[in-house]
Amino acid sequence: MSKTNAGNFFEDFTVGQVIQHATPRTVTEGDRALYGALYPTRFALPSSAAFAAGVGLDAHPVEELIAFHIAFGKTVPDISLNAVANLGYAELRFHQPVVPGDTLSTRSEVIGLKQNSNGKSGVVYVRSTATNQRGEVALDWCRWVMVHKRDTELAAPETVLPELKKALEPQDLVVPAGLDLSSYDFAAAGEPHRFDDYTVGEKIDHVDGVTFTDAEHMMATRLWQNTAKVHFNTEARPDGNRLIYGGHVISMARALSFNGLANAQLIAAINGGSHVAPAFAGDTVYAWSEVLDKAEISDSIGALRLRLVATKGRDVSMTLRRSDEEGAGKYADGVLLDLDLWAYLPR
Amino acid sequence: MSKTNAGNFFEDFTVGQVIQHATPRTVTEGDRALYGALYPTRFALPSSAAFAAGVGLDAHPVEELIAFHIAFGKTVPDISLNAVANLGYAELRFHQPVVPGDTLSTRSEVIGLKQNSNGKSGVVYVRSTATNQRGEVALDWCRWVMVHKRDTELAAPETVLPELKKALEPQDLVVPAGLDLSSYDFAAAGEPHRFDDYTVGEKIDHVDGVTFTDAEHMMATRLWQNTAKVHFNTEARPDGNRLIYGGHVISMARALSFNGLANAQLIAAINGGSHVAPAFAGDTVYAWSEVLDKAEISDSIGALRLRLVATKGRDVSMTLRRSDEEGAGKYADGVLLDLDLWAYLPR
Amino acid sequence: MSKTNAGNFFEDFTVGQVIQHATPRTVTEGDRALYGALYPTRFALPSSAAFAAGVGLDAHPVEELIAFHIAFGKTVPDISLNAVANLGYAELRFHQPVVPGDTLSTRSEVIGLKQNSNGKSGVVYVRSTATNQRGEVALDWCRWVMVHKRDTELAAPETVLPELKKALEPQDLVVPAGLDLSSYDFAAAGEPHRFDDYTVGEKIDHVDGVTFTDAEHMMATRLWQNTAKVHFNTEARPDGNRLIYGGHVISMARALSFNGLANAQLIAAINGGSHVAPAFAGDTVYAWSEVLDKAEISDSIGALRLRLVATKGRDVSMTLRRSDEEGAGKYADGVLLDLDLWAYLPR
Repeated sequence: MSKTNAGNFFEDFTVGQVIQHATPRTVTEGDRALYGALYPTRFALPSSAAFAAGVGLDAHPVEELIAFHIAFGKTVPDISLNAVANLGYAELRFHQPVVPGDTLSTRSEVIGLKQNSNGKSGVVYVRSTATNQRGEVALDWCRWVMVHKRDTELAAPETVLPELKKALEPQDLVVPAGLDLSSYDFAAAGEPHRFDDYTVGEKIDHVDGVTFTDAEHMMATRLWQNTAKVHFNTEARPDGNRLIYGGHVISMARALSFNGLANAQLIAAINGGSHVAPAFAGDTVYAWSEVLDKAEISDSIGALRLRLVATKGRDVSMTLRRSDEEGAGKYADGVLLDLDLWAYLPR
Repeated sequence: MSKTNAGNFFEDFTVGQVIQHATPRTVTEGDRALYGALYPTRFALPSSAAFAAGVGLDAHPVEELIAFHIAFGKTVPDISLNAVANLGYAELRFHQPVVPGDTLSTRSEVIGLKQNSNGKSGVVYVRSTATNQRGEVALDWCRWVMVHKRDTELAAPETVLPELKKALEPQDLVVPAGLDLSSYDFAAAGEPHRFDDYTVGEKIDHVDGVTFTDAEHMMATRLWQNTAKVHFNTEARPDGNRLIYGGHVISMARALSFNGLANAQLIAAINGGSHVAPAFAGDTVYAWSEVLDKAEISDSIGALRLRLVATKGRDVSMTLRRSDEEGAGKYADGVLLDLDLWAYLPR
Repeated sequence: MSKTNAGNFFEDFTVGQVIQHATPRTVTEGDRALYGALYPTRFALPSSAAFAAGVGLDAHPVEELIAFHIAFGKTVPDISLNAVANLGYAELRFHQPVVPGDTLSTRSEVIGLKQNSNGKSGVVYVRSTATNQRGEVALDWCRWVMVHKRDTELAAPETVLPELKKALEPQDLVVPAGLDLSSYDFAAAGEPHRFDDYTVGEKIDHVDGVTFTDAEHMMATRLWQNTAKVHFNTEARPDGNRLIYGGHVISMARALSFNGLANAQLIAAINGGSHVAPAFAGDTVYAWSEVLDKAEISDSIGALRLRLVATKGRDVSMTLRRSDEEGAGKYADGVLLDLDLWAYLPR
């Protein structure tokens, strides 16, 4: 019997099954430094322990996306090694900040199954939960992937479809314990714009662009212990290119969004996202955002629901979808990522 | 109104104005590790906490250039985003070592202004000061940049030119509290040469060379939160190349200078520097030094004033300037950097 | 007299001579993070402080190869700067885990000399010992290199050949203080295979491959303060390629071996190794292992003696040597590395 991991196939999953994923991972200051070397992030809170303490967070959190990438990476060997496609995610919520010294582990529960009509694959829905060394929940999320069947002759399981929110409600969001933005230092943060300065429907061009390299996206993806072959091996795809991990595009877009959203310091939740097109070394990525919704969270904290869009090449018109007859409703050329998130900023 | 930072133009500056720059930044052991991965540095003091303790520094300092790059990077969005050219810097002085856990912030005071005769731009002189989380000065320096005017019709401001020293005097230099090189371990440091072994006028070929890559210079430049577009974006320059941040060349040359200057452990000051030619991925950089001056600082500490020169391709003749009739006085071909600094070494 | 290091030549070595190598180096959490960014390692023990504590190691060790690369790098300027070839190593033994905060220094004793018959070079045998800041041995090993003579007219020294073990015996191995695998968490580690599941002669295809980049191998090699020019400088070899440090291939193969050997958590010793062919950016490396021997170490700990083979391109047949008439006994095409090591895993 082979000792190497062949991954799970569609028929290996059953609704209610809980999978404890491998490789607990301790977050360190090294992760923060590497994140800052790989992405042009300048948000003051994760950059400065003093700034974090000034808003009530005495332990210095790392960026939420570090926690997400680590937690997500653990699920790959068990959930999506034999995936045909990553179809979507929803209800991603950060329950508490992750700080250096925290050890993250992830488990997943299968919450839905639906075999495809061709009998060769099916969609698996899981709710994944990352906990720290004290057993407290750091973040959780749902995702669904299309997975190959090993044996196409097997009968289909009963179809179970979970109910997933299109977006989390403001009351679903968790405010980190102690967070208080009433003494927020706007000069240190780099921009004067507060909650009231943003309006629903407003679009923000983040202006700056970064050209990807293979060394950088591989280093980022390894840091998260994500093992998908296509990111690392030029022999894994017919075109000989290393596909950039979708999370690398997310982090790059988030970092670029500083320019115009410098005060959207903390990501509270990710409502969903589409990786619209693949990205490769040599592509230059830009980003723009749209304010989708607003909510008052506390006396000092507001939340913006933002659409964060990454594009290959700059699109000053900030067009998400085509309006021409043939392509109406399809994503516009150049769109790489369409992400829907909640972020906190000072009121 | 756009929410993104358009930077300051010449007419936005007034003499005496103080600008508090954004994004305080906590230095960590991750920075030290990345610096060691990006540059071939082997100076024993920043490499070894035990060596540092042995010369009286119980907290383990990071290399001075880490502090400089971080402090400098903060000034870019406010001072030089609309720069035509970075013209020079002077009087850079390290006031105390920076250790992991320190949070650096930078503010700048405008100390001079001179509009160019064409009315389209002007030179802005600033003194920038980086402080730690206790409000103590870590380093300060002057620099001057040529900045575009937004409105070329505006009248010129009164010309104010600051007096800047061509080089700091030995008595201007600050010795880190506790530093005592009397029990210095030359075997651990790697070379036997002490203060008396160096003579004014002596040149040292540092022998080794390193070929630049795009991934590495971008990672370094991001680590310092330097946001200048030309370093990251192949669409920012007509030739499609990413210009290497001048500070990357400085750090590479400093690290290469270990071979012959292994005991010049601490940089005390930078008197000035010229970035003579641009550098790009694929260039192989070498370095040589010239001893410009010497000073006895304490019973155990001496200081060397050094010219540190980086070249594209090795120049065993160590020629700084051309002597041919046509080009007399111009920098020799291949010279990338001409830096003037003070460094401490054991007597 | 030149101040730069010209390295030692064959006639500079005498049997019994002890060389204290330069640049003590403090290991940090930054090293762990960078190692995880540069290699696809997922071993639970170095990944998770909580997992390490669960097997009795309250201080969180870094991977043994981090300690080895750092300790080895220190010997290069004194031992192998003028090497014609690195011929081999033996009896590498880890005496205790290295944890962040430890400062490593290395010294070498010359234990053998043999001039080559051509009189132009000779083989130098050294035993190198790396100690921490408390003077305790962290690891030691022997290696032998062929070194140029400076003066080919000099008489040959007396030939002294050390006795070196082809492989360390199980009783030679040192178990880290406190290590107890009786409560080992196989789910967290990622695979169910324990000591009894492996049989001598068994081969394991580690399946995954990684394509090398120049930026990554240079960053790794610098992190270990290894200064050999050929790794960094495209002008150092006639073909203009940067040769990848052999240790980079070792670490990549070790990380790839997770897939099938996830529970071989700690390397106890390296018995020897051959760098069969050079590796360059663009090569895609795969790995396979063969179980050479087994030994019961304690009630909870077993040891596997493993041949770890790295190949350029995947070899599903896992062939080490050619069997055709012409090449019989030679390494098979594509073999880059043939490493012989002992590793601990749970019984």
